[in-house]
Amino acid sequence: MSATRYTYLGPEGTFTEAALRTLPEAAARELVPMVSVPATLDAVRNGEAAAALVPIENSVEGGVTTTVDELAKGEPLMIYREVVLPIAFALLVRPGTALTDIKTVTGHPVAQPQVRNWLSAHLPDALWESAASNADGARLVQEGRFDAAFAGEFAAATYGLVPLVSEIHDAANAETRFVLVGRPARPAAPTGADKTSVVIWLGDDHPGALLELLQEFAVRGVNLMRIESRPTGRGIGNYCFSVDAEGHITDRRVGEALMGLKRICPQVRFLGSYPRAGVAPADVRTLRPGTSDEAFMAAADWLARSQDGRF
Amino acid sequence: MSATRYTYLGPEGTFTEAALRTLPEAAARELVPMVSVPATLDAVRNGEAAAALVPIENSVEGGVTTTVDELAKGEPLMIYREVVLPIAFALLVRPGTALTDIKTVTGHPVAQPQVRNWLSAHLPDALWESAASNADGARLVQEGRFDAAFAGEFAAATYGLVPLVSEIHDAANAETRFVLVGRPARPAAPTGADKTSVVIWLGDDHPGALLELLQEFAVRGVNLMRIESRPTGRGIGNYCFSVDAEGHITDRRVGEALMGLKRICPQVRFLGSYPRAGVAPADVRTLRPGTSDEAFMAAADWLARSQDGRF
Amino acid sequence: MSATRYTYLGPEGTFTEAALRTLPEAAARELVPMVSVPATLDAVRNGEAAAALVPIENSVEGGVTTTVDELAKGEPLMIYREVVLPIAFALLVRPGTALTDIKTVTGHPVAQPQVRNWLSAHLPDALWESAASNADGARLVQEGRFDAAFAGEFAAATYGLVPLVSEIHDAANAETRFVLVGRPARPAAPTGADKTSVVIWLGDDHPGALLELLQEFAVRGVNLMRIESRPTGRGIGNYCFSVDAEGHITDRRVGEALMGLKRICPQVRFLGSYPRAGVAPADVRTLRPGTSDEAFMAAADWLARSQDGRF
Amino acid sequence: MSATRYTYLGPEGTFTEAALRTLPEAAARELVPMVSVPATLDAVRNGEAAAALVPIENSVEGGVTTTVDELAKGEPLMIYREVVLPIAFALLVRPGTALTDIKTVTGHPVAQPQVRNWLSAHLPDALWESAASNADGARLVQEGRFDAAFAGEFAAATYGLVPLVSEIHDAANAETRFVLVGRPARPAAPTGADKTSVVIWLGDDHPGALLELLQEFAVRGVNLMRIESRPTGRGIGNYCFSVDAEGHITDRRVGEALMGLKRICPQVRFLGSYPRAGVAPADVRTLRPGTSDEAFMAAADWLARSQDGRF
Repeated sequence: MSATRYTYLGPEGTFTEAALRTLPEAAARELVPMVSVPATLDAVRNGEAAAALVPIENSVEGGVTTTVDELAKGEPLMIYREVVLPIAFALLVRPGTALTDIKTVTGHPVAQPQVRNWLSAHLPDALWESAASNADGARLVQEGRFDAAFAGEFAAATYGLVPLVSEIHDAANAETRFVLVGRPARPAAPTGADKTSVVIWLGDDHPGALLELLQEFAVRGVNLMRIESRPTGRGIGNYCFSVDAEGHITDRRVGEALMGLKRICPQVRFLGSYPRAGVAPADVRTLRPGTSDEAFMAAADWLARSQDGRF
Repeated sequence: MSATRYTYLGPEGTFTEAALRTLPEAAARELVPMVSVPATLDAVRNGEAAAALVPIENSVEGGVTTTVDELAKGEPLMIYREVVLPIAFALLVRPGTALTDIKTVTGHPVAQPQVRNWLSAHLPDALWESAASNADGARLVQEGRFDAAFAGEFAAATYGLVPLVSEIHDAANAETRFVLVGRPARPAAPTGADKTSVVIWLGDDHPGALLELLQEFAVRGVNLMRIESRPTGRGIGNYCFSVDAEGHITDRRVGEALMGLKRICPQVRFLGSYPRAGVAPADVRTLRPGTSDEAFMAAADWLARSQDGRF
Repeated sequence: MSATRYTYLGPEGTFTEAALRTLPEAAARELVPMVSVPATLDAVRNGEAAAALVPIENSVEGGVTTTVDELAKGEPLMIYREVVLPIAFALLVRPGTALTDIKTVTGHPVAQPQVRNWLSAHLPDALWESAASNADGARLVQEGRFDAAFAGEFAAATYGLVPLVSEIHDAANAETRFVLVGRPARPAAPTGADKTSVVIWLGDDHPGALLELLQEFAVRGVNLMRIESRPTGRGIGNYCFSVDAEGHITDRRVGEALMGLKRICPQVRFLGSYPRAGVAPADVRTLRPGTSDEAFMAAADWLARSQDGRF
Repeated sequence: MSATRYTYLGPEGTFTEAALRTLPEAAARELVPMVSVPATLDAVRNGEAAAALVPIENSVEGGVTTTVDELAKGEPLMIYREVVLPIAFALLVRPGTALTDIKTVTGHPVAQPQVRNWLSAHLPDALWESAASNADGARLVQEGRFDAAFAGEFAAATYGLVPLVSEIHDAANAETRFVLVGRPARPAAPTGADKTSVVIWLGDDHPGALLELLQEFAVRGVNLMRIESRPTGRGIGNYCFSVDAEGHITDRRVGEALMGLKRICPQVRFLGSYPRAGVAPADVRTLRPGTSDEAFMAAADWLARSQDGRF
């Protein structure tokens, strides 16, 4: 194992690399691009890397299902950090190319819906063909196979290109969330603005099971921030749910909710408790009365006294 | 304090005395009738008696509100046993009285609705006047102030009367539940067929508070056996709820539900965990999956491992 | 039937009579006191009276169970009005009696807990004996059988007594709610500050049935103002619930909630929709978004268009 | 518009075409392959086709997000039929190719996880490169750019290939669900085994909103068969839900649940009620008591009578 190596979903020049470089600890690490999400994560599982950064959710396209599914299955991994990156594309071209020269454009399939409107307005006749990644599209432009590629502006230098247009994004607020994943270990201490990720399998053929799942959170005042259904692979109609909840696993309300899920669901996988990106403790929604650690401890004390007949 | 004295709602010859005598330990105690439920319970609070038996619920009339309110307020007391007694009345008369001689009848006001149909069928012209208790009615017959009294057949000897008719009860299954009450102490160990009593105050003016109260039980799979609304004395629309739940306070699911209530309600009073009268462990409803002590402990173990990052 | 006769729970001089006289229409009616709640209501069932006023709830003692049970059973009746009366007792004596002369006091058993503190403070040695009603206690004082009676001050004149002390009530905010009951007919039109009363029977032995009952109200945003458990007479553990909900049966949210109850419960009895005493439309809690009649009608319109494939 | 033309997600030889050909009405239609899901659906929106068949859900990969999002946005469309096709791949090669000759394989990216295990076992050294569709992969083999393609066996003839191995699928029960989509019109009459599809937007930043959404279904006894979260495009944390529920929009319980959603959610889009593929009315789960059309009509009748005071 190399404690100094971090893998990320490559190639060089992707938004994932840009997200990784926002982490201070990345400066002291060897950053290794990998060809796929499974390969990026397997390097951690195999001990070849200390951690891996992968995209998990995009505000336009939704969950990155490969990441969600990889974290739900196989050798357990845990999330230790998240990074949220605003997504804006630059139109990268070889030096000297003008907008009117562009007949063919490329980019990752996920990029297409995010630049579609811009394309119809500015390059209505350009032919789109998908590339394996945005960075790969840039490489293909470098090689002369396309006239222009949509990619992060930061990818230009890597491939000897220049940004012809910047800040292209059809949807306002487009952003991608990335997670830093490592082998299981004790989560970092709570910061007061934390998030807990978990995958929950529902029992077969039990109408109302999802409602019961949500009630385990609701009755303890734990807010859900994301819920994503995923097939279990056992046929249509069998789902598991990937869930992000407000709070830390060491918060009593979160712990009790997780135990409740563990008791009623066939399987629960804890994916980590970690600080919420860009959210300070002061920004966190006020707890529902009766759900603070203090309230939990006072109630436990009261129960112990009641069990002894002391009032 | 006298550890050998039990009080009960008197006078002698009431159903309460009959219920008390069904308890084996009553044989070794001095049984003292009291004039009212508050007096019966205050003797325990004052240390003049070790325990008190009082009626708490009647299948025809409902909760005995004085008992419910006395247990909810004042110096805390706890329930250690319950006794359920089928209620059937005898028509007690002085020796020599025939049915056709009866012009006036008496009994406790609670008895009246339970014998009303019998009266219209067999003594349509008899005049009813209420007595302070069934036994007191018997005494008034002994004194010649009424011709007949409805009371328990066991009261006849005490007052020199004879049962003219037995087993009178309009409603099938009429029964009264009594509780044996003492000062707070550690509840008896669970038997596998237990009941937990509690009084819960709702926060002011919070629509949906009762629903939340019930959900604290439901989400842990704890069944309710009785729920009775009582005014708090703070004006119409302010209630507390007297509740009996299946299970023992040392059952994890019950303990967690009670802590949940303690957290969200302004006040919760634990009234005891005790064996269910006439119910064997084998008769108890099967637990909902995931709510046994084993499931709770397995989940707690899983949580501890997850908090340490051990899977 | 006499359209001009109203019965009330007598005798003359009770709080019930005082409550009835607050209704403008009472001035034009013959007001007839009856000996019991069943007799008061049966006069309406039999056509001997157009309406009856009976107490239904007391802020200290709770539900008046005879009234609640009478409305739940037998020939259907409906509630058309409610009256809420603050309860304060006067100590009525024969002219010339001083406080130091009082050795014996009487009053309705319900009055006792409401004057208990006053009694210990001012007449600690006086002997209490219950009377059949507060007014009856006044009569017994008139007849010289007791020295003083707790009753409404308005009862003094009827029985030739004088109030020695006024405004006696241990609990602040003590009040009693009365209902004006008639034979079933179309309820009055909604006023904007209405209440709907209903009795709901739960299915046998179905844990969670009460929770489902409450959810029928909650999911339509209908607030509950009162819920009172009553035995069904079929043995301990069998309950029905007497419920008051905010709103009028012609409000869509209330109608849909009642239909939901009707579908899932073995029996539902509608007891009436009527104006809330002392509450103006402007004082009513704001409706939860999406539960107004307009929202219901817009949704019904949307459903009809969807069923036709028109968007 | 051409009432005789159906579009489908092409090219020729895809599983979508195979699914479309299972529909009897397809025999009489001109079947036109399109290059993308949006193009396939836009042909219907534009009136160039009467209906379109597109994949919507795969038991291995989950929802086909392009389809789900296309149906949620833009000009409304409706689902009229569903087809479920078991997915098994054949390894297609040019005539004469042996297993040992295969150095490069291709197929749709979605195919890869479904044949990954088979590949490692039988062609561990073969190089995988993705194609735009399974059928497109077959075309590339025909052109000699790859040695083998994973595709449906039915695609072999179209591209002059032969199946070297059949029935390849890592996951048992792999299947894909397709929907036949048309312009909005009145849904077909209920068959007794129907499904209703709807897209529901949650209000912003309202913890518990998903729970409320599910309760609208649960309280009317409507079972959910599929729930899929999708981003709304308004930033991370904003979701809509694509839901399939048991029953037909003309079933009372379904209609009332939909109206409930319409009232509390900012937007609801009805996507159709249609027969469940491969499910006969006799196979449908028994309705919860009180949720049949009969129960709804009886309750509506009871409400109308209650509003008139007729019992």
